[in-house]
Amino acid sequence: MSNQTEKKLLWLDCDPGHDDAMAIYMAAYSEKVELIGISTVYGNNTLEKVTNNALKILRMGGIYGIPVYKGMAKPLTRKVTTAESIHGDSGLDGCVLPDTDQKAITEDVLHQIYLKIKSLPKKIHFVATGCLTNLALLLSTFPDFKDYIEQISLMGGAIGIGNWFPCSEFNIGIDPEASKIIFTSGLPLTMVPIELTHQVSITEDIFDKLKAMKTHFGENIVGLMTFFKHTYKTVFGLDLVPLHDPCAVYYVINPDAFTVKFLNVVIETNSEYCDGRTVVDEYKTTGRKPNTNVAVGLDLNAFWEEMLSALHKCNKNTPINNQ
Amino acid sequence: MSNQTEKKLLWLDCDPGHDDAMAIYMAAYSEKVELIGISTVYGNNTLEKVTNNALKILRMGGIYGIPVYKGMAKPLTRKVTTAESIHGDSGLDGCVLPDTDQKAITEDVLHQIYLKIKSLPKKIHFVATGCLTNLALLLSTFPDFKDYIEQISLMGGAIGIGNWFPCSEFNIGIDPEASKIIFTSGLPLTMVPIELTHQVSITEDIFDKLKAMKTHFGENIVGLMTFFKHTYKTVFGLDLVPLHDPCAVYYVINPDAFTVKFLNVVIETNSEYCDGRTVVDEYKTTGRKPNTNVAVGLDLNAFWEEMLSALHKCNKNTPINNQ
Amino acid sequence: MSNQTEKKLLWLDCDPGHDDAMAIYMAAYSEKVELIGISTVYGNNTLEKVTNNALKILRMGGIYGIPVYKGMAKPLTRKVTTAESIHGDSGLDGCVLPDTDQKAITEDVLHQIYLKIKSLPKKIHFVATGCLTNLALLLSTFPDFKDYIEQISLMGGAIGIGNWFPCSEFNIGIDPEASKIIFTSGLPLTMVPIELTHQVSITEDIFDKLKAMKTHFGENIVGLMTFFKHTYKTVFGLDLVPLHDPCAVYYVINPDAFTVKFLNVVIETNSEYCDGRTVVDEYKTTGRKPNTNVAVGLDLNAFWEEMLSALHKCNKNTPINNQ
Amino acid sequence: MSNQTEKKLLWLDCDPGHDDAMAIYMAAYSEKVELIGISTVYGNNTLEKVTNNALKILRMGGIYGIPVYKGMAKPLTRKVTTAESIHGDSGLDGCVLPDTDQKAITEDVLHQIYLKIKSLPKKIHFVATGCLTNLALLLSTFPDFKDYIEQISLMGGAIGIGNWFPCSEFNIGIDPEASKIIFTSGLPLTMVPIELTHQVSITEDIFDKLKAMKTHFGENIVGLMTFFKHTYKTVFGLDLVPLHDPCAVYYVINPDAFTVKFLNVVIETNSEYCDGRTVVDEYKTTGRKPNTNVAVGLDLNAFWEEMLSALHKCNKNTPINNQ
Repeated sequence: MSNQTEKKLLWLDCDPGHDDAMAIYMAAYSEKVELIGISTVYGNNTLEKVTNNALKILRMGGIYGIPVYKGMAKPLTRKVTTAESIHGDSGLDGCVLPDTDQKAITEDVLHQIYLKIKSLPKKIHFVATGCLTNLALLLSTFPDFKDYIEQISLMGGAIGIGNWFPCSEFNIGIDPEASKIIFTSGLPLTMVPIELTHQVSITEDIFDKLKAMKTHFGENIVGLMTFFKHTYKTVFGLDLVPLHDPCAVYYVINPDAFTVKFLNVVIETNSEYCDGRTVVDEYKTTGRKPNTNVAVGLDLNAFWEEMLSALHKCNKNTPINNQ
Repeated sequence: MSNQTEKKLLWLDCDPGHDDAMAIYMAAYSEKVELIGISTVYGNNTLEKVTNNALKILRMGGIYGIPVYKGMAKPLTRKVTTAESIHGDSGLDGCVLPDTDQKAITEDVLHQIYLKIKSLPKKIHFVATGCLTNLALLLSTFPDFKDYIEQISLMGGAIGIGNWFPCSEFNIGIDPEASKIIFTSGLPLTMVPIELTHQVSITEDIFDKLKAMKTHFGENIVGLMTFFKHTYKTVFGLDLVPLHDPCAVYYVINPDAFTVKFLNVVIETNSEYCDGRTVVDEYKTTGRKPNTNVAVGLDLNAFWEEMLSALHKCNKNTPINNQ
Repeated sequence: MSNQTEKKLLWLDCDPGHDDAMAIYMAAYSEKVELIGISTVYGNNTLEKVTNNALKILRMGGIYGIPVYKGMAKPLTRKVTTAESIHGDSGLDGCVLPDTDQKAITEDVLHQIYLKIKSLPKKIHFVATGCLTNLALLLSTFPDFKDYIEQISLMGGAIGIGNWFPCSEFNIGIDPEASKIIFTSGLPLTMVPIELTHQVSITEDIFDKLKAMKTHFGENIVGLMTFFKHTYKTVFGLDLVPLHDPCAVYYVINPDAFTVKFLNVVIETNSEYCDGRTVVDEYKTTGRKPNTNVAVGLDLNAFWEEMLSALHKCNKNTPINNQ
Repeated sequence: MSNQTEKKLLWLDCDPGHDDAMAIYMAAYSEKVELIGISTVYGNNTLEKVTNNALKILRMGGIYGIPVYKGMAKPLTRKVTTAESIHGDSGLDGCVLPDTDQKAITEDVLHQIYLKIKSLPKKIHFVATGCLTNLALLLSTFPDFKDYIEQISLMGGAIGIGNWFPCSEFNIGIDPEASKIIFTSGLPLTMVPIELTHQVSITEDIFDKLKAMKTHFGENIVGLMTFFKHTYKTVFGLDLVPLHDPCAVYYVINPDAFTVKFLNVVIETNSEYCDGRTVVDEYKTTGRKPNTNVAVGLDLNAFWEEMLSALHKCNKNTPINNQ
């Protein structure tokens, strides 16, 4: 076992979700980071469903001992949005996930997350692959919480067009006020926008490698990704199977694999059509001070090596291959 | 002593502040309510100053054993606004307040408030006489917190013109997003707007009664109210000494003294000039469902009887009269 | 005939409408002003209907030779709003108006208005008693048009609550962008808000005077005002028959009868709930420069003398009394 | 001479401007269209300067008999923005333009444009390469003006990031309300966004062809484009010399050279950071009805053939080569 104190400590706030599942696997099996806990948030589906998905994904990956905190069920000031058209009725359609005995922590949740992170020997790398309601409330309700954060790495935002909304990416767009709290927090912040994650699409070559596992686990992953491929085509007309969320995890594991630009980003919360837009000052014409590392490039080979390595470890540890 | 279980339990969230001081005295000495705790919030001055003011006001009123929780120092998504021009550099200019040994609770504050209120034998009447940041975070962070609330009575909002802002009253206007969370919470909600509280102004007759105390305490109250009278004239050009905040307390003590209209009120958070406006559907032309009791009338005699009674009790119990 | 050059020249832009009818009569029969022309605009009803109403109102008042220009049918950037619930299906429900041979000018209309006003020997007093679309386009399309305007007197806006909209008065609220153009035009501007015009309500005493005419004309006016009284009660719950529009005419006739405050007023065009609000800086807290005379008081006796005098002249000249 | 009735009639509304100059040359010398008139509008520089530029550009291209109408000097409801950092102090920095005796039409301008276009034997193809204030006022002020328009082809908008503003392209962003009027007009509308025009950049190969003219005219064009290249690098950090504006002209000349998508586009006018954004429903997720042909591809060879042909005709006709 590697020495835990040499690893970066990582918290994963997510809403599984197909690509969130892959983010969990990468975070759990990386040699470079220690996954301390997982918190869930409404988004890809209801809080209830995504929390169940997180638990089952851990079980399917043969991952034990990672506490799952059932976070917030709705945005700060708006109505809930969920994405059944992308992630299916379960939030993880495409295969049957195994049941698990693990239970989520459901009482006093944000406070328990705060206490857990506060108790760690080192500052946490906080990775958010869903909307930012949990993190916004942690920062607002526990003002010293920011002292325990090394950096925030989030999957979300768009430099150009959005996805779910014409001008806004889903994670930022479904709780713009929470997003604004993060982007004005003053904490070190890296945003991995859809322009980058659309480059991280599962190719036929990768599909072949997954199929080559010839296991129940491999079949399930292929099933999940095939469903995801299908909905991306149906909803957006895109021939992509984008692994959005593990990119934000990978930024903690291997920041050198990324090209980033340090730019000003503000969140639009006050508009008719553009709420949740990440207003990126790409051309530095606004005079506003840079506050965000915007990821614009990635060493795809390095990423896929890490991703596939994690999946192979899952495949080895999963309880489902012999069923 | 009256039987505590027969009294309504009252929480006072405030930012003292001249009229907040009067609200504290009314809440502490009413026969009808039991003041369980006080939480403070930035607003009339910084969190630091208003918290100190709350402690000193308790001391000056001879009130002991009421815990003071030092709440939030800034709005959810916006910059801090404070009102030195109205309440002075200290937030309570106009007299010298006594020192006190009581300390505020400053750690894990919102969580401690949550635990305290959750532990009570009955639901709380939550009175807010400052901005609504504390209450918004309590409701958002601890989703079951709403189950412990009997009703919310708040001083804030305007039916017509604002005060601090042309279209918005100060308490609502300095954290519109928090206000929106309250007004969409679904909890029983009464709003005491400035149209009502401007009717509750200290007259010469009342000033005479305060002066007639001929005590140090009485002088201090007269000093505070004289300062307040002066700034109201200077800043707004109004010949008023409005006791805004005790009105929201008094609504818990004696709701029958009020005339209320049950109307729809939404909070504008998305505008150039009107953020924080309480959009009151006075003429029921919007089709939006009523959600707020808007106080439009008050039995002034009944109010002043309660208010003066509280001040006389302070005058009797204060440690400063013999100094 | 009075010497035209001694009279103020008055243009009336309106959307008749019950109170617009009274504005036309006052403007046409005042000794102090010369009514040069009438332009119509959608608002109280469609452009088609309000234009017909203007023509018939002239006929019913025995007023000839005043050209009627059929103006704009919709707001600059928004959808049309009309007020059938207040003014009825015809826009002037409550009596049968006489037919007329007069035709409105319907071609090249704004340009013809521009040419007409430009051709006058003196600057015009431009009175607007409907929304401000016509005037906004005149000022925008013909940049020198402003040189021919002595002042603008408009009925519209609210200092406190709105009427049609919770935060906005009807005339300003149905075309906020046009209103913004007027309020930023730099022209001398007087706004007569609903707080003033609600004071100018037809009392039983006035009704008695109208009935005392014992003519067909008198019956028609009583019929119109009774209808108006009824809808004000039904829609707003108000016991008022407010003669909004003639107030703006009367400001040109007799400005000394008004108490005005010179204040900054900006128009909200960028909000969820408050578009069209006249943001009046009543307490001068914004630091914005005054740009508008806001009418806050009126010598009611003087007003009614003028109004009744005009109606008596109509009653004398009308072609309908002998039918 | 070609038979005029077989040509499409083209109106060019512009704010020269380096690329506007090229648009004028293409429009004036195309075999497929007849340039009927040019109207100018503030934007790349003040109305005064861009109007002078239009006149001088005509002279430099040896183009006579095209009337120039000096249009609007400011946006409908906002303050004027100009782009000296891109187009220089003159609006056409980079060479010395020849003087001309031609005068712009400066009186009754929008009305004269309306009359001119109304008088034509066929509907006009209205090309806008600046902001849309002129066209918005023409459509608003003269409601039948729309009956004389075959289609609108405009250079403006962005699908992804903006240029002048982070979320908005310059032409749309400097008068969002005018833009909204165009995009809700119901007229056939093609938008050529910066994503397309950035593909239409002057390459070294094209620069060589211009230099090969070895004339004063050729030197001037090279001078203009070199200046433009320099400011694009300085302001935006882009290695582009984009001929934005002639693209919109070329769409009228040869629509088949373009790939377009018929999509819904709405204009944001109501935001803190995104006013003037062309909200393009690329993924058809909004349910809003398509209203705009968005140009997404162009046969660059065909474009450059037309553009260079026009410049060669200028080079032949210009009065400056023998000076």
